[in-house]
Amino acid sequence: MVRVAGGTPVEVPFYTRLYENPELSVGEYLERHLIPEIVALYLNSPNNPSGKVLNRQQLEEIAEFVKRHNLWLISDEAYDGMTYDEHRHISIAGLPGMFERTLSIFTFSKVYMFAGLRLGYLVAPNAVLRNINKVMVHQLYSPSTLAQNMMVEPVKSRKAWGPEFVNHCRELRDLFSDNLRVEHYRPEGAYYLFFSIERYLRGRDYWQVIEECLDVGASVAPGNDFGADFSHYIRICFAGEPPERLEVAVDRLNQVLAGE
Amino acid sequence: MVRVAGGTPVEVPFYTRLYENPELSVGEYLERHLIPEIVALYLNSPNNPSGKVLNRQQLEEIAEFVKRHNLWLISDEAYDGMTYDEHRHISIAGLPGMFERTLSIFTFSKVYMFAGLRLGYLVAPNAVLRNINKVMVHQLYSPSTLAQNMMVEPVKSRKAWGPEFVNHCRELRDLFSDNLRVEHYRPEGAYYLFFSIERYLRGRDYWQVIEECLDVGASVAPGNDFGADFSHYIRICFAGEPPERLEVAVDRLNQVLAGE
Repeated sequence: MVRVAGGTPVEVPFYTRLYENPELSVGEYLERHLIPEIVALYLNSPNNPSGKVLNRQQLEEIAEFVKRHNLWLISDEAYDGMTYDEHRHISIAGLPGMFERTLSIFTFSKVYMFAGLRLGYLVAPNAVLRNINKVMVHQLYSPSTLAQNMMVEPVKSRKAWGPEFVNHCRELRDLFSDNLRVEHYRPEGAYYLFFSIERYLRGRDYWQVIEECLDVGASVAPGNDFGADFSHYIRICFAGEPPERLEVAVDRLNQVLAGE
Repeated sequence: MVRVAGGTPVEVPFYTRLYENPELSVGEYLERHLIPEIVALYLNSPNNPSGKVLNRQQLEEIAEFVKRHNLWLISDEAYDGMTYDEHRHISIAGLPGMFERTLSIFTFSKVYMFAGLRLGYLVAPNAVLRNINKVMVHQLYSPSTLAQNMMVEPVKSRKAWGPEFVNHCRELRDLFSDNLRVEHYRPEGAYYLFFSIERYLRGRDYWQVIEECLDVGASVAPGNDFGADFSHYIRICFAGEPPERLEVAVDRLNQVLAGE
């Protein structure tokens, strides 16, 4: 989409690196990837695919970077509310001086579990909304009125059922993470495991392993969908299936990947 | 949207001219507006706002123009099936040599009356669809699965209820057209009246008249939304309201416009 709009995307894959080195300074890491033409930063926390949830200090460093270089921030918060253990989702637009330069994007696809409706919403300063509307009225006209009406009640009742759903997902994460005999970091949010399979190839080609996963009925997403840095990674989704089926999936993935 | 994509739109307003002069050659008219950089022609018949329905000969002239200049044709057929009297909707992609260069666009908003679902479909050669999908997967991901499922039954049963709906709209057109004391052409399709109010200003400013229409409760669309050529036109929609309310609307519009 950036290229379609005439821009040049630059990938800055710090989420996985924060698992490897929690002390990594996100601000310095961003500075090292800076290009002079930069106009906007795209952020996604809780993160798909890594499951990383940025903490307040990391978000503050990003906010400083954005303000220092006078950027727009597109904050994709699709997994808003989908965090585990002590991790908490913080909207970066709430940090000092950030609201006026941040487009915060939310969806009804994840915690609300209505992916099929294709509905979401955006929080941004009025001047930004006015300009976005100029494009949206021609590109989309409006979101479905049916879908909008369907979401009124879930928005009102979210606090009642939300924690139970997130707890259910945390249990699925534990089941999957505890039983998978492949080195990986335990996701702090979202519902994916994302790891390198480089040391599990055992002479096989990367795509051959993907094929073998599919052959045993475990659908995995190839890592390069998420950036050039991840050509030996795979992403596994652990939501949307009952625990019994996930146990079968873990067993089969262990066979294909760990050779057990 | 053309400008956003880096193109230059050129308006060629022949629909209203075909009411004034049914013998006008559409092919010659297009040739007169030709610019060397042309890559695509956008067509909309049955036409919003004019209600013009292009006949086979006119579509053949357009097809020849498109083939002669090796253009893409974007054929917006949103009002597919919504034609009155002897007028029939013909899909230009069905003319010889046209399928491979035509993107035919349909919607469930009009005859299907599900505008709120924001769902439609496109018919085009496979190679075009593959390229459109590359953009769509990032821009829209997919249409709503709920909306898609909702439209299965209406698509199957369309022939049973479609003619009755179109006949109902024809009656509303007759009611509106017969009673409106303002010079206009009787629409051949769609559900709009589109006409100049220049001779009904009686010293008033154009926008003042629009305001007066709104003040009496008749919502009209300003003509320049439909092209620079129509700055003294207004568009009136005659569908979506029961006949009794339309009669009230005509009376009030007659007062504002014709001064009766």
